[in-house]
Formats: sequence, C-alpha cells, structure tokens
Amino acid sequence: MYDFLPIRELRQECASIIPVNPEQEKRAQAYLDGLSKPPGSLGRLEELARRLHAVQEHSPLAARPARLFTIAADHGVVEEGVAANTQAVTALMLRNFIGGGAAINSLCASAGVELRVVNAGISTACAFAHESFINAGIAPGTANMTKGPAMSREQCGKALQLGITLAENARNDGIRVLGTGEMGIGNTTASSALFCAYFGFKAEEVTGMGAGVPAAGLAHKAKIITRALEANAEIIRSGDPFAILAALGGLEIAALAGVILGGAARRMAVMIDGFIATAAYAAAWKIVPDVRGYCFFSHGSAERGHALVLRRLQERPLLNLDLRLGEGTGAALGLFLLEAAAHAYNTMSTLQHAGITLPDADKKNS
Amino acid sequence: MYDFLPIRELRQECASIIPVNPEQEKRAQAYLDGLSKPPGSLGRLEELARRLHAVQEHSPLAARPARLFTIAADHGVVEEGVAANTQAVTALMLRNFIGGGAAINSLCASAGVELRVVNAGISTACAFAHESFINAGIAPGTANMTKGPAMSREQCGKALQLGITLAENARNDGIRVLGTGEMGIGNTTASSALFCAYFGFKAEEVTGMGAGVPAAGLAHKAKIITRALEANAEIIRSGDPFAILAALGGLEIAALAGVILGGAARRMAVMIDGFIATAAYAAAWKIVPDVRGYCFFSHGSAERGHALVLRRLQERPLLNLDLRLGEGTGAALGLFLLEAAAHAYNTMSTLQHAGITLPDADKKNS
Repeated sequence: MYDFLPIRELRQECASIIPVNPEQEKRAQAYLDGLSKPPGSLGRLEELARRLHAVQEHSPLAARPARLFTIAADHGVVEEGVAANTQAVTALMLRNFIGGGAAINSLCASAGVELRVVNAGISTACAFAHESFINAGIAPGTANMTKGPAMSREQCGKALQLGITLAENARNDGIRVLGTGEMGIGNTTASSALFCAYFGFKAEEVTGMGAGVPAAGLAHKAKIITRALEANAEIIRSGDPFAILAALGGLEIAALAGVILGGAARRMAVMIDGFIATAAYAAAWKIVPDVRGYCFFSHGSAERGHALVLRRLQERPLLNLDLRLGEGTGAALGLFLLEAAAHAYNTMSTLQHAGITLPDADKKNS
Repeated sequence: MYDFLPIRELRQECASIIPVNPEQEKRAQAYLDGLSKPPGSLGRLEELARRLHAVQEHSPLAARPARLFTIAADHGVVEEGVAANTQAVTALMLRNFIGGGAAINSLCASAGVELRVVNAGISTACAFAHESFINAGIAPGTANMTKGPAMSREQCGKALQLGITLAENARNDGIRVLGTGEMGIGNTTASSALFCAYFGFKAEEVTGMGAGVPAAGLAHKAKIITRALEANAEIIRSGDPFAILAALGGLEIAALAGVILGGAARRMAVMIDGFIATAAYAAAWKIVPDVRGYCFFSHGSAERGHALVLRRLQERPLLNLDLRLGEGTGAALGLFLLEAAAHAYNTMSTLQHAGITLPDADKKNS
C-alpha cells in the first residue's frame, strides 16, 4: 500500500489514517436533537458538531486549542510572468506575518486561534527569528514547472514530512484542531495546474486573478499552466498523486498536504482555507481518500475556479465572503464557527431539562 | 413629519435619525486599499469595515462591546393552530435563556457578545429575576390578528418605546453595536403577515415551517395569515407602517423595531438576525428608511420566504448556515464577523509599512 510514496515513514503515516466513523455522526445528531431547540434548527452548526464528534469520538467536543499554519514558499514558474507581484513580496509578507501586521494575524486573534508561520522554501535567505516562526526552508523555491517537475521527489517528500511534523508537534502540544494557510507569489498558478492534473479541468476553467492579474493577462497565465501540464504530461498520465504534487505543486502546498495527512493520522480536524489550501487538500485526498472525514471547507474563494473544484469534490463551504487573500484568513473564520458549534453542543441544556415536550411531528422527523 | 406615530417622543426619535455618510464609506475603502493585502481581497469583511466606518465616522472602529437583545412575547393567533408548539414554550424558553442553557447563550459567549433577555409580553406571569433579564411585559401576548389588530396603537407604541429605551440604556452603558433576537411561539406567522402587508407578497410565498410544521399543515398557516390580512385590510390599505405593525406584528417584533430605530438614532450598528428580526427591520425601515445604513443582515434563514424578502430589500446576508432558530443566533455569528472586520481594519499594517509596492494594475483598480 502507498507504494508510490518514496519514504517508508510517509507510507506508514498514510496507512495509519482510518476513516471517521459515521455511527458517531448519527449518535451526535441524536444528542443534538435532544437539545433545547427545534431539531435541525442550528443548520450547519449541527453538521459541524456531529462531524467533529465523528473525528474525536467523544464529548465534550474540543475545537480549542486550535493552531493555524501559514506556510510560505516561492515558485519558479513566476519567471513566466504569471503573477502581478514579484517574488520579493513572499518574503515581505513572511516578515509581515511574523511582525503581526497581516490579515491572518488579526483574524487568528479574533477567532482565538494560535498562528504559526512557516518558511517551507522562499527564494531568498530568511533570517527572521520569532517564537511563532518555523524556518524550515527545503529549497529556495521550486523550479519552473513549464520546463519539468517543480520539485524533485525528495523535495516533495521532505515538504510532506515537514507538514506531518507540524501536525505531530501540534498534537504533542495539546492542540485539537488545525488550520491551513499559505503565502507564495505564483501559488494560484501551481494550484490551478494541480486541479487540472487531478480532475481533468482545462486551464482556463480554473485560472483566476490570484493576488492580482498579471501584466500579460489571464489568458497568458492559463497558457503557462497548459505548458506546465504538457511538460509534465507523462507524470500526469501515470496518475501517481505524489509525483503529480511534486511536478506541479509547491513546497508550501506539499507541506499543507502533509499537515492534512498528519492531522488526519492523529484524529485532528483540519480546517481548509481557500483555493491553494484546497489544492493541498486535493493532493492529500488523492493520496489517502479517508482524509475527507477530517477536513472542513471554510469558505468559497472569489478566485475563479474554486467553486468548480469544490463541486467536483462534493464539498459545500461554510462561508461565502468573497475572500481571495489566502494566508488562512477563511480558515480562521471557519475555526470560529467550529468552536461556536462545539461550544453549543457542549453547553446547551436538553429539551427535557428545559421542561419542553416536542410536538409529535418533530419527534418523528428527528 | 412622522405624523402617523401616536407619541411625540417617537416622532422626535425618528426625526433624529440621519442617513449614514457615503463619503465615510469611500474614505474607509481608500484606507483598506492601503493595508497589506491585495485591494478588495478581504471581500465582505471590507464591506463590513467600511459600512461600520460610515456608521461611526471615526477610527479605530468599535464593534465591541456589543449587546444582543433576545426579546420574547406571545401571539394571540396561536389559537388558530398555526404553531407546532404551545404558548407555554415561550415562557419555558425564556427561563432557558435566563438559565444560560439555550443556543443564544452559547453563541453569544463564543462571539463575545453580552446577552440581555427581555419579556415584552408573554402570556403567563413572569417572576424570573436575573441581572441579564428585563421584565417589561406590556400585555399578556397580542390579540388574535384574524379578528382585528393584534395590538392597540398604545401597546405598539409602548413596545417601540421599550426597544428605544433598550438602545438608549445600551448606549449609556458604553455599548457600540447591537444585536437583535427573539422568541415567541407564533411569531413566524406574524412576520409573514407583515411581509405580505409591507411588500405585497402572497401568504403562501412567505409561509414556512417556523419552529415546526403545525399539525394542520403549512397550507392552513398560510390561510390564517390571509385571513389576518383580510381582517386588517383597511389598515393595510392605509399604508401607515406603524398601524400595520400594530395590526399584524407582535410585542417582541415592535420592540425590536424600536431597538433598530433607537440604535440608528444613536449611530449604533444593529445586526439583524433572521426571519422575524427582518420583519422588525421591515417595520423600522418603512417608518424611517434611513435606518438601512445602520443595519447589517447576518444570515439567510432556512425559513421559507426569507430569501425572497431579503431580495426585495436588496440585502445580501453575510452567512447562509441554514439556521432557523431565531433567538438572535445568526446575529451573534454576524457580530463575530463585524468584530473580525473591525479588528483587521484597526490592526493591520499598511503596504508601505510592510515595504510592499503594488503592481500598477491594482493601484488603478483601487
């Protein structure tokens, strides 16, 4: 099993992921139906609570402490003119995350989520030091995927292992729920390429403006993605999800896939952010389909193609706030909803305690 | 002005509401465009921040402290078999709110919102005492609106004044943002009737299951609403928004309309909950259209007709979580988003501070 993975530890990690138990969802829903409200009236908060119960298999539900990883890396494909910003912005934003001035710092603070900033491979030297910062640069960015694989199998394996280690350390620190976020000029291009390779989309269908329309236009961006798919056509045809991730992904995307795999292996819920985190999810899900039960889709991004991909994955995001920033901003908001759902599950009184008898129709429905 | 209002203080209150200043929205958007993110990339969080700036006209934005009112009352129309539950449930849930065991208690705690529980007129004696409880019963429920007006003009005026007093006391306590919530068996029936009277909907279009489908079915509920519209046809034809509120509303709905008017008069943002709070908004908006700039629509309810009414009001709710509980549960979640938006506005670093130069295209877009 998992013979396509190059490292024994990775194969073991993936083999340790078991599907969530649908019986636990049913049990949680039965409990929810006895709380002091009409059955089902908390809508998707009930869905969150019962799914978290399926992940954790016990109550009280624990949605805190939560830790969100904003993982940064650079992308060689940027030299093809696919991004509006220069690669230098990746490092500047990394410094901004560490300094506490970015949107993700603010939203994690509002949501009561701990933020860890990770360098998985930016293109410049990185000498920041901060307690919330993990400097694990695997390579100075990826290679240009229009000329062959973006990452070697070794680099991609290391990035997956980085993410798994982040999940493992979080679990050892008592963290119960993880969040995913990223920063990397050029990474919508890599993500679009992964969606094409994994699901057969055409580049134009899943190519959007990212952080800004490149000077050469969106059609150019789509053309570059198509060229990357051609340059890696043999790997894509192989169907090997790990090799495809190495060929078209990024160091931060592979690391996030590792967070998802490592989180699922440790029975932790993982909140997925937007377009790029969904690409990381797609890779993790192609490697181990059973990660699905552990993952929660926080929001539908304004990035073109995200809605299409989510439909393909049969996932309905919690929020539609027209966010298109990444960093984990949507995941932070999703983690608030997960905590709100867990807290309601844990603290609401029962109908019986409140002295309320449901009408017969509701009893039958529930 | 406001000659249709029966009380001088109400007329003065309404006359004191001024429209929010669209220039302040533009100024706030210009500031948002200089923060360390691509312009517009925080989507609807940016909309929340700029609208709050238009309400408050200064920065830092203040979305806290926030206070949410869950206002309870009973409805005489329940004797027509429009509700699945008996009126006794209103009092039981009031006790549950005060005891801290309801969904709204949990969600307010998660969102960092102070909850005040208000009795505007339940049908039974109410002897609860609690620091968060305001016992202001105006009448033992409304009259049966299929036989004439649900409230006298005097009762409706008192309920509006109750809401205004709640807003005024909140402002005096240093509260900056209000939330709306309610409880009252039968109050989806009253709300549907108000939507029909104010906007010309047919009863069937805006009649949903409420807290549970009544034993006699939804068609019966719609028929009762139609009968109430007929019994009050002359008042509806007059177009007097206050008289319509008295004829078809409820004591909690009128009190919430008062919270909205009183909040707007004091330049406070008001977060609107679901179906019933939207009926209160409709009344307030029909009385003083300028309340619109102060009000934020937290969520689209699963209650049938809410989406239709929101479209009619040209409002797009922040959340779509299939909630259909009321109490203020959606408003509490919306108040979290408002605080998250305000905090990002207040604390994010600028692009300049982060050393980032935007590409020209984004500068032009912004």
